[in-house]
Amino acid sequence: MLIVQKYGGTSVGNIERIKNVAKRIVKTKEQGNDVVVVVSAMGDTTDELIKLAKQISENPPKREYDLLLSTGEQISIALLSIALHELGYEAIAFTGAQVGILTTTDFTEAKILDINTSKIKKELSKGKIVIVAGFQGVTEDGDITTLGRGGSDTTAVALAAALKADICEIYTDVKGVFTSDPRIVKDAKKLDLINIDEVLELASAGAQVLHPRAVIFAKKYKVPLVVRSSFEDDQGTKIVEEFMEGLVITGVAIKTDEAKVTVLDVPDVPGIAAKLFSEVAKEKINVNMIVQGTSRNGLSEINFTVPKKDLITLKSIEEKIKSSIKCSNIIYDDNIAIVSVVGTGMRSHHGVAAKVFEVLASRGINIEMISTSEIKISVVVRMERAEEAANALHKEFKLSEIEIKTE
Amino acid sequence: MLIVQKYGGTSVGNIERIKNVAKRIVKTKEQGNDVVVVVSAMGDTTDELIKLAKQISENPPKREYDLLLSTGEQISIALLSIALHELGYEAIAFTGAQVGILTTTDFTEAKILDINTSKIKKELSKGKIVIVAGFQGVTEDGDITTLGRGGSDTTAVALAAALKADICEIYTDVKGVFTSDPRIVKDAKKLDLINIDEVLELASAGAQVLHPRAVIFAKKYKVPLVVRSSFEDDQGTKIVEEFMEGLVITGVAIKTDEAKVTVLDVPDVPGIAAKLFSEVAKEKINVNMIVQGTSRNGLSEINFTVPKKDLITLKSIEEKIKSSIKCSNIIYDDNIAIVSVVGTGMRSHHGVAAKVFEVLASRGINIEMISTSEIKISVVVRMERAEEAANALHKEFKLSEIEIKTE
Repeated sequence: MLIVQKYGGTSVGNIERIKNVAKRIVKTKEQGNDVVVVVSAMGDTTDELIKLAKQISENPPKREYDLLLSTGEQISIALLSIALHELGYEAIAFTGAQVGILTTTDFTEAKILDINTSKIKKELSKGKIVIVAGFQGVTEDGDITTLGRGGSDTTAVALAAALKADICEIYTDVKGVFTSDPRIVKDAKKLDLINIDEVLELASAGAQVLHPRAVIFAKKYKVPLVVRSSFEDDQGTKIVEEFMEGLVITGVAIKTDEAKVTVLDVPDVPGIAAKLFSEVAKEKINVNMIVQGTSRNGLSEINFTVPKKDLITLKSIEEKIKSSIKCSNIIYDDNIAIVSVVGTGMRSHHGVAAKVFEVLASRGINIEMISTSEIKISVVVRMERAEEAANALHKEFKLSEIEIKTE
Repeated sequence: MLIVQKYGGTSVGNIERIKNVAKRIVKTKEQGNDVVVVVSAMGDTTDELIKLAKQISENPPKREYDLLLSTGEQISIALLSIALHELGYEAIAFTGAQVGILTTTDFTEAKILDINTSKIKKELSKGKIVIVAGFQGVTEDGDITTLGRGGSDTTAVALAAALKADICEIYTDVKGVFTSDPRIVKDAKKLDLINIDEVLELASAGAQVLHPRAVIFAKKYKVPLVVRSSFEDDQGTKIVEEFMEGLVITGVAIKTDEAKVTVLDVPDVPGIAAKLFSEVAKEKINVNMIVQGTSRNGLSEINFTVPKKDLITLKSIEEKIKSSIKCSNIIYDDNIAIVSVVGTGMRSHHGVAAKVFEVLASRGINIEMISTSEIKISVVVRMERAEEAANALHKEFKLSEIEIKTE
């Protein structure tokens, strides 16, 4: 088998952990597999590099910023390769540029265009373990780029797709995908199997196991994914395309890094929402939920959520928005949380939404916004009630009693 | 003018110093020059990276070791470029690989084969300040290499040669080339001008201003060199090819990192020295001074010096040497120092050697070995007498009274 393994920053957070990861890789190799390993930067390295840059400039030029940040993974791949050699195994480490991960020139958030697999295949054929720096690539001109959020996961999935790997294992600091965040919902359970659409919705709804970008990539190229812990011996969670006995609900996610924005007294004429959100998009702010209220006297209210970190930027264009759409006022509220229930079974089960609302109503938890997709129901509640809401929903849908056998 | 500037690790040792270096570069640029800057890794970065590797392996694979070490300069070039942007100047930073510094595949001590200057020239023509990582290059296969000792100096000189720069300025933490080490000889004086052969001999004799390798390169390609301080505004020392009014002596150097090795009762037959030193060379140990005594009863004594750090390796092949050349014993002495006087004027002035011996004899300083070149006289003395010897010679040759006008 050809296996792509990805180890995140926590998994290679210090020398001891790098040695452990090396042992785990050797185990996979010893089982007769070809192994390609994607590694993130060690623990806080990236943050420390950012700190250095910020001491010089509030707004460093992006090309040089990427040149700086990419050293983080270069250090970890070199150390991991040294650790494998020390265990007596032939390994070879490549930066994104060396291995030919061709990207766009969008520094700090480059997109992968193509991967030249010839170098990797050549080294694999010599029996070597190939280590590739995650999160980074190179432009056609030879400039080093980074891939932005979820970059290392994306590198791993893209490599697995390009190499037609039999499996892509994402190693992290938790056992796999859980029915909810175990720090918030005490009886959250690890899932053995999950549908890729559910993972995507869970990831977008705040579950931090896999970056949505990597999941979309995996779905598009049909890359078989497994999420596992690098610290424990557990099967992890296998992510599958179809899932015959789909549960109604497989997970409850809580997202606390969003803020609610309310735009008051918006003239209810066509094209107003487009105007509003194109102004927001220009600032590269990602809008998550959007709810437009019904019109009263020709005026309506628009509610939406954005990442809290983007509030400052949003406030800086407040006057521009006001004069553009002629609303009366804009109110910001960062004391909210988004609670979502996700499950492919929703498609065939009616009444899931009603049950969600009932459970929250019976506890007097006020729902401030609702947004649904085919397999997800998200509600905005007060931050201080989010934990209670998540636990109640987790219990109501009997997620702690899940029993799924892996094939 | 096209100016190549090289800043060492101390000069970019922290964020404040990087900002200062940026200001100095801007000053040069503002005077209407094209500027190419070569930078070493910040302060202790390289040592810290080495420490990480050594925690995993006593003998890390060299290719991966170079991949690791090269991140040090990648960080400093990115930060310096950010600092220049912050001052409002267009700058672009390149790693050795990006800029096309082609080297041999001798990892950890690669030699520069060729430099592709097209990228640099293109950026200079756009008015940009070009920053290049010192100490590193790339093989034809795209593997990252490092150049070993004196690497950043060599990068700067090689770039200056390839670009046909008008001058190559080596910035360091001292004002220039001194008549002796100011920490040892209190009235040592900075030289305004020095002959390149003298710098070469001084560098080899232990003066730490410029690496001999870079000096040889500069001599070969006739690169005009200046050594200056990055902390002070001083003209520095200009290194010239010819020097009309050459002084008899321009410098006294002290080298304390060598040990003396004495091989006893060596059969005085042809080819014995060749046998001995080829065994030593096989271990990649650099022999500095060699003195063979006169023969007595068909047996002679060979004395030589090697770097102290290589004593362990040398001792490990002691039995091999003994059986190869049939000597009676080998004695090691690491309590010595080499004191050298250097000057092109020696060529035309007789009696310099005699004066050196007299000065030391009058103070009862025993000379254990003597080695001379056309422009250098080196003597081995007890370590504890080295400081006194250097000061006495410095005084005798009136080096503190030097008055040289720069043109």
